[in-house]
Amino acid sequence: MQRVCFVLQVKPERLEEYKERHRTVWPEMREALSRAGWRNYSLFLRDDGMLVGYLETDDFAGARGRMSREPINAVWQESMKGFFVDAEGRRADEQMRPLEEVFHLA
Amino acid sequence: MQRVCFVLQVKPERLEEYKERHRTVWPEMREALSRAGWRNYSLFLRDDGMLVGYLETDDFAGARGRMSREPINAVWQESMKGFFVDAEGRRADEQMRPLEEVFHLA
Repeated sequence: MQRVCFVLQVKPERLEEYKERHRTVWPEMREALSRAGWRNYSLFLRDDGMLVGYLETDDFAGARGRMSREPINAVWQESMKGFFVDAEGRRADEQMRPLEEVFHLA
Repeated sequence: MQRVCFVLQVKPERLEEYKERHRTVWPEMREALSRAGWRNYSLFLRDDGMLVGYLETDDFAGARGRMSREPINAVWQESMKGFFVDAEGRRADEQMRPLEEVFHLA
């Protein structure tokens, strides 16, 4: 099992709207994440827009690949793209780069 | 159950040493964390020194308070203090400020 952590940047002026969208994530999007193997997945937001993602999965490369092939994901990611800061204009799911886990205690 | 995420900053010039210390965390320190109720606790490090902590606990205020009263914790925190960037010179465990969880999928 892999524990995955990634960090993204939400535009500070859109934090409230970002939070609102995540209170009402489409059921189809939640089901797609589960089907693709994303488990115990949380998003945490700092008040300056720094966003931390944490999830558990058997294989993140596989889980990410499966999610990228879910049709609902493309719709969701396009609808969310304007919330993120990225010099290269990528979608959030294209920006996710796992950090190195340096300690774990069960 | 609470899922807690916090972010700290390790001095970029001390990353390798920080990682080495965390490969060999004292068994007494690990036992104290477990006794204090820190579960599924991971630390993730970005190559610029940004450090993300994630843990699960019944009550973070309580878990943090119990840990602060473990004698081994004071020794550990003092030994690690020089690794962290903090304008106020606080220990890492004094700097931990939980981020807001804005999404969760079991």
